[in-house]
Amino acid sequence: MADLLALCAFNAAYAQAIDNDALEQWPSFFTEDCLYRITNAENEREGLPSGVVYADSRAMLEDRIAALREANIYERQRYRHLLGIPVVESADAQGTVARTPFLVARIMHTGETTVFASGEYRDRFRQVGGKLLLAERVAVCDSTVTDTLLALPL
Amino acid sequence: MADLLALCAFNAAYAQAIDNDALEQWPSFFTEDCLYRITNAENEREGLPSGVVYADSRAMLEDRIAALREANIYERQRYRHLLGIPVVESADAQGTVARTPFLVARIMHTGETTVFASGEYRDRFRQVGGKLLLAERVAVCDSTVTDTLLALPL
Amino acid sequence: MADLLALCAFNAAYAQAIDNDALEQWPSFFTEDCLYRITNAENEREGLPSGVVYADSRAMLEDRIAALREANIYERQRYRHLLGIPVVESADAQGTVARTPFLVARIMHTGETTVFASGEYRDRFRQVGGKLLLAERVAVCDSTVTDTLLALPL
Repeated sequence: MADLLALCAFNAAYAQAIDNDALEQWPSFFTEDCLYRITNAENEREGLPSGVVYADSRAMLEDRIAALREANIYERQRYRHLLGIPVVESADAQGTVARTPFLVARIMHTGETTVFASGEYRDRFRQVGGKLLLAERVAVCDSTVTDTLLALPL
Repeated sequence: MADLLALCAFNAAYAQAIDNDALEQWPSFFTEDCLYRITNAENEREGLPSGVVYADSRAMLEDRIAALREANIYERQRYRHLLGIPVVESADAQGTVARTPFLVARIMHTGETTVFASGEYRDRFRQVGGKLLLAERVAVCDSTVTDTLLALPL
Repeated sequence: MADLLALCAFNAAYAQAIDNDALEQWPSFFTEDCLYRITNAENEREGLPSGVVYADSRAMLEDRIAALREANIYERQRYRHLLGIPVVESADAQGTVARTPFLVARIMHTGETTVFASGEYRDRFRQVGGKLLLAERVAVCDSTVTDTLLALPL
């Protein structure tokens, strides 16, 4: 159960980095050879590649943030992540496999706030040098149409 | 406090079963002679029966799921529950009484996501054979008009 | 980590008092010489005063609730707070500094539910007589236009 709280604290810090425009911190939540994908429930169930966002190293995540900065996307919108408590599926020497529900609100410059995305993270956590990191995070969106709007990380 | 985390983990698994279309698992979160109701804050305050959803046994919950499957309701919409941390009101040999806020997003097949329901669970948990189960869950919705749209469990 | 759970429990009780119309309890979550402000991310980043809600004592919070009761605002709307897990920035003899994301749904009398506000609490907690209290809570809204609608406490 202490582990569950550690996962909660990790996810809270992860969400805060994104929502408070500290995007450069975002890759540091992953292992160097991580897997990060965004897909939707329908594609994931049928084993289809999502084609939306795919990265298989921390370096690719860093590139993505650099591209977002160049596009200056943050000026026009903010995100607010609300995360649930993880459901731990397994935990052993290889790491911890867990699922965590998310709801992301998007706040446009006009002030309008909408539910931008919902879904669940399907994660594999690993301890590296005593630090909890994401070896894998697949953000499975509930909606199939979130994709076209994706900008900031989920 | 360890108990609080156990309640959190229970609720997370409960929500995941519903949101990931494992509805057949849903009755297993309840005791055999459970009480499950959905009502709204106004009716509950005035002591009125809600008339929306009422079940006083796990068998009735199973019937409800079978009916939902027959209606094939899941094809047309998905739910995403975001739950807060429970507020524990009492905990003794009879069980644990707690309230937990919920927000449920509904994702239509068109992709549109809206806040479908908000409210709080008013729960009585019991340990049965070392396992935490719901002896009672009353889902008190904030809105009086949620009712007509109810399909999947809250 | 045990402390983190205590913060979660505190915030859950705080939100419940507001959402369940026990507004008179709200000031009791603060120290007597507390600071409570509502502002938005843009003003806060530029160091501007928000001008929306400002109170520097528990007595002022009590006055605010009395005014809300007089305006009878609760008849026309309900709030539902969904709070995330706090990110603890520091914890020492002076207290605990933490940030907690919030999402607040507003339920109008017509039943319509919208995302009313999102943001984060920037808090300083203190132990007073063995009890956790807020010495400071700044509710930083993501949107600059939430302000004009503010009624119940965040």
